[in-house]
Amino acid sequence: MENISVETTEHTQFLDITSRVQDAVRSSGVSEGICMVYVPHTTAGITINENADPSVRRDIETVLGALVPWNAGYTHSEGNSAAHVKASLMGFSVQVPVAGGRLALGTWQGIYFCEFDGPRNRRCVIAAMPLPAHA
Amino acid sequence: MENISVETTEHTQFLDITSRVQDAVRSSGVSEGICMVYVPHTTAGITINENADPSVRRDIETVLGALVPWNAGYTHSEGNSAAHVKASLMGFSVQVPVAGGRLALGTWQGIYFCEFDGPRNRRCVIAAMPLPAHA
Amino acid sequence: MENISVETTEHTQFLDITSRVQDAVRSSGVSEGICMVYVPHTTAGITINENADPSVRRDIETVLGALVPWNAGYTHSEGNSAAHVKASLMGFSVQVPVAGGRLALGTWQGIYFCEFDGPRNRRCVIAAMPLPAHA
Repeated sequence: MENISVETTEHTQFLDITSRVQDAVRSSGVSEGICMVYVPHTTAGITINENADPSVRRDIETVLGALVPWNAGYTHSEGNSAAHVKASLMGFSVQVPVAGGRLALGTWQGIYFCEFDGPRNRRCVIAAMPLPAHA
Repeated sequence: MENISVETTEHTQFLDITSRVQDAVRSSGVSEGICMVYVPHTTAGITINENADPSVRRDIETVLGALVPWNAGYTHSEGNSAAHVKASLMGFSVQVPVAGGRLALGTWQGIYFCEFDGPRNRRCVIAAMPLPAHA
Repeated sequence: MENISVETTEHTQFLDITSRVQDAVRSSGVSEGICMVYVPHTTAGITINENADPSVRRDIETVLGALVPWNAGYTHSEGNSAAHVKASLMGFSVQVPVAGGRLALGTWQGIYFCEFDGPRNRRCVIAAMPLPAHA
């Protein structure tokens, strides 16, 4: 199990952490299995999406911002309820197959840390779980 | 693998089950690994979010209720389509790292059973999967 | 770890893949554990929901279509940003307990491949991870 630091630089930001997850998988020595990436925060989440055109991430950020506006008469006094909602909509972990010692992502997939109340110093936990031989 | 009963008392309710999941992890004897909590229903889901100020959960419930209104010309004759949609938006499992025999949640994180068509007697399945030594 | 082909026939479609996942679990020989079903795409996702009345799936498709309209001034030039957003809202994997060599789904649960930009030839990865004996 490995912890990585993630430093976000914007208030809302989808940050590509794919290569850092790949490094952790390599360090784990797991050849075939499942990799979990976990976000231990409540105003940031994690998702998978297109790794080619960065406008896709911006469109996702825009849609989430329209669905869950920052100011909407929330009761939570800290004022960042929208970030909490968006984190639950994206979720707090992704699971990805590992094959041949590498993340078996689809061709166009990358793993994105989803900052919804930054910039902040954040962290992820990466655990690679091996499948038993012949399973 | 352990089953726990969850009795909800409201129509829509985010119920903190963190300590019950922690108890199941302890019973499992798993020291390092991943804990999955699974909801075997279709009008209830599960998420992680802030464990301190209960207004956060109420704000999440309110936003989901605004995005997916109870009455909106749905075709499903049982009348609870909104609950089905909200369950899929939150998801039916969470995965959390286990370290030192305990859930390695972030400081502000709790695990919430999300009732969207209660009150009902519900259930969760908890499975703690150990990482191999040195993995 | 098993790959299955999924051929969708509609632009937006929730396709029941439960029996195919069940077949892969049987082939894996795993008796107690966790099954992950992974979607290696960025405009399709996966979820769990009601297996009885097909109108539930249509209502979910309708709500997602209303929340994330196909045309809404997106910046991504391919024109399918809505599909990317909906895939992230549903997620790219489900995890389901395995007991007695079978998926331990709830009575009303099925597993649905969520096509948001079809029809296309798609694929899923299925990995069944055994719990150690006595865990």
